[in-house]
Amino acid sequence: MFDPVAAVQQFIRYPSVSTDSRQRAGMEGARDYIAGLLEKIGCCVSVLETDRHPVVLAVREGRPEWPHLVIYGHYDVQPADPLEAWRSPPFEPEVRDGRLYGRGAADNKGPMMVHIAGVARALERNPSLPLRITFVIEGEEEIGSPSFADILQRHSDRLRGDFVLLSDTSSPSPEQLAITTGLRGMVCLDIAVEGPRSDLHSGVHGGAVLNPVQALAALCASLHDADGWVDVPGFYDRVVGARAWEREEIAKLGSDDSDYLELLGAPAFHTVDGLRPGAATRLMPTLEFNGIGGGYQGEGSKTIIPSRAFAKVSCRLVPEQDPVEIEEQLIRTLHERCSPKVRLSVHPGHRAAPYQVVPSGREGASSDINPCLARAFDAADRSIAEVFGKPPLYLREGGSIPIIAEVRRLLDMDSLMIGMFTPDNNVHAPDENLHLEMFERGITVSARIVESAGMAP
Amino acid sequence: MFDPVAAVQQFIRYPSVSTDSRQRAGMEGARDYIAGLLEKIGCCVSVLETDRHPVVLAVREGRPEWPHLVIYGHYDVQPADPLEAWRSPPFEPEVRDGRLYGRGAADNKGPMMVHIAGVARALERNPSLPLRITFVIEGEEEIGSPSFADILQRHSDRLRGDFVLLSDTSSPSPEQLAITTGLRGMVCLDIAVEGPRSDLHSGVHGGAVLNPVQALAALCASLHDADGWVDVPGFYDRVVGARAWEREEIAKLGSDDSDYLELLGAPAFHTVDGLRPGAATRLMPTLEFNGIGGGYQGEGSKTIIPSRAFAKVSCRLVPEQDPVEIEEQLIRTLHERCSPKVRLSVHPGHRAAPYQVVPSGREGASSDINPCLARAFDAADRSIAEVFGKPPLYLREGGSIPIIAEVRRLLDMDSLMIGMFTPDNNVHAPDENLHLEMFERGITVSARIVESAGMAP
Repeated sequence: MFDPVAAVQQFIRYPSVSTDSRQRAGMEGARDYIAGLLEKIGCCVSVLETDRHPVVLAVREGRPEWPHLVIYGHYDVQPADPLEAWRSPPFEPEVRDGRLYGRGAADNKGPMMVHIAGVARALERNPSLPLRITFVIEGEEEIGSPSFADILQRHSDRLRGDFVLLSDTSSPSPEQLAITTGLRGMVCLDIAVEGPRSDLHSGVHGGAVLNPVQALAALCASLHDADGWVDVPGFYDRVVGARAWEREEIAKLGSDDSDYLELLGAPAFHTVDGLRPGAATRLMPTLEFNGIGGGYQGEGSKTIIPSRAFAKVSCRLVPEQDPVEIEEQLIRTLHERCSPKVRLSVHPGHRAAPYQVVPSGREGASSDINPCLARAFDAADRSIAEVFGKPPLYLREGGSIPIIAEVRRLLDMDSLMIGMFTPDNNVHAPDENLHLEMFERGITVSARIVESAGMAP
Repeated sequence: MFDPVAAVQQFIRYPSVSTDSRQRAGMEGARDYIAGLLEKIGCCVSVLETDRHPVVLAVREGRPEWPHLVIYGHYDVQPADPLEAWRSPPFEPEVRDGRLYGRGAADNKGPMMVHIAGVARALERNPSLPLRITFVIEGEEEIGSPSFADILQRHSDRLRGDFVLLSDTSSPSPEQLAITTGLRGMVCLDIAVEGPRSDLHSGVHGGAVLNPVQALAALCASLHDADGWVDVPGFYDRVVGARAWEREEIAKLGSDDSDYLELLGAPAFHTVDGLRPGAATRLMPTLEFNGIGGGYQGEGSKTIIPSRAFAKVSCRLVPEQDPVEIEEQLIRTLHERCSPKVRLSVHPGHRAAPYQVVPSGREGASSDINPCLARAFDAADRSIAEVFGKPPLYLREGGSIPIIAEVRRLLDMDSLMIGMFTPDNNVHAPDENLHLEMFERGITVSARIVESAGMAP
């Protein structure tokens, strides 16, 4: 059995920033490293080419009647800038106070290693475990997994299994693990409003034409009502409200949100329907402005009527909102509401469906849940309670992992997601880190899940 | 007599962008050039230091009982960006189709040169013209003339005269000159809205806090009503309506606004109260957004909740609106309307009072108009009719020249303003240009005005 902490450290040393074309060597290094490690634990590795960064596919073969576990991870990481904000260099892993620091420690090199080590440990204990295992490790997650749906379709025979196991979501704390029961989907739009052909002198021409920033502000402001609800007709029509058990699970997060407010550094929370922030981010859809721009942005003043202004909008969607439908509603609403005295253009960006998986015995559980996944849920629940001292919480997550809904749509597989980073692990930020005790305990849990998947029903 | 067109060309070659600290050499070059030219026509030049860009003072001395004409201009120009939108480089003047192209050609290097050449011509014809002349050429007009009031006060003995002659306003066309009877004032504000301490992941945290761009859009959208009126309590209280003769003059602009719309390149006009655009820009106050920004502005998407967003606002004011009062109303309104879930900060910028000067014989004319100015108004009216073939229109202007109201407040002098650029001269925009025939004719008119000012009453 390899040393999993040393393996994560070595993995971090490859700067595998998928969005940065100068980091080609880092991408290749990380890919070769993880492929080598998967070979070492007994897998047969192949590399699937894509337009940008290949997918590593590692297979433990077995008899066709054996269950088939698919494990997902990604070897690419976010850019590390601003570099000066890191206490130790992002690609030189360092252990301090029980945490391993480095870019990718929490997203996703550490959590992915939990399951590689979990498989290794399970197979060490039972080399003849009757389970087929396929690792699918992509290199384009941080750039939106553009090739993944194509890979799923082209290799559907090799990738179709009983369920997917992954850790790319969060848990409330290193002691309180979460099993992630839902992910938000996404719709992205670029909006641009154009008025006069070029910027105009606001004295000479001010009062003759509609200012594009004014038109855009009115348009953007129209998208929420005074209570914070998204004001787009039909937006909430398909939203499935929280079930009683979901409210109970969220209530277990505790009633004190002051630490969270302190972490955000905002003057106040702002949620719809009187929800607590931890409920709002998990259960409700949003419409956010990711950016806005137009006219003069420098120091001092430049008294112009800007020629154009733009905004970047993204919605997070919850089950059963349909991204295609929401995108249509939004585009239609924008065109209906925009003043005809400016020209509006709307460019759709990427879309992702929301996802939900409800374990058996809970309201909303699907009746035909895969029996192998059902065993894995049970094993996860029991082993987390035992190893971490507390049963897991079953929580939906505010973030999106677009490929999870794609896997269900294309291959009809659900996913078991165990949160292996925490809010203080600085995912996508400087000083990203991994709790090492949580990591070690996670491996124990992962091995139990793997063993359960390989048990006869 | 120097070649006035060549002089404007040389003047343009100095990139005198007052707001840009990297253009120090351009500012110095333009200042030295204009000082040298004024010396060449017989003036005694001194340079008055200010905190940023000195004022050039050039004096033709004379007997104390002679009338005293003050001529105003500014040697600084607007920034030239976006550079790629220029057909020829902004600081390399080029003549095409009877126009001179370059930054500052119309604002204010060309029109200022009209009066330098006008004085030169008048003095060439009558070297003993009994007229004291003082040129005051500042370098901070495009940044709001922050030092000018101080200069007026410190040098009031040298700057107090019978009236000010200047050309820094517009005429309807190269054939139809305007005498400018009013200027709009100005109030500028920078607004910033801050939410979370740093940009947040819009998945993990979306739904918990108010998005600063959303708060800013709502705040900005609240500042106009659906009919386009500025929705700030008290804003219109002191607005003086148009007089009958003003409506008649504006009517002479013609009833076809299609050329103007074509020039602006906007889908439609947008005016309050059913006014025609030429009336709205001259007679009504405005509130414009000069710029807006916040969050991610690059290509593609970055799904964040921005930490902050900002907008740059400026109001144009008409007689008798008070800039201090309007600024207070605006700041109070912003604070009243901004959500308490973000932090609002408002930074006032420069302020300018509106101005109006009404020649004798018209409703609203002041009874105690300076006799030398009255002669100059007559000379301007007659010589424009003769040289341009049409009598001038008497029009208020949409733009602002803050120092004109300051001159009246501090030195009790009115101004004779002759429009020497036209709407298609792209003032403050790429491809700024000057009509050369209008320029030449303007010099003839200017010389007549100078001569009239020097005549015994």
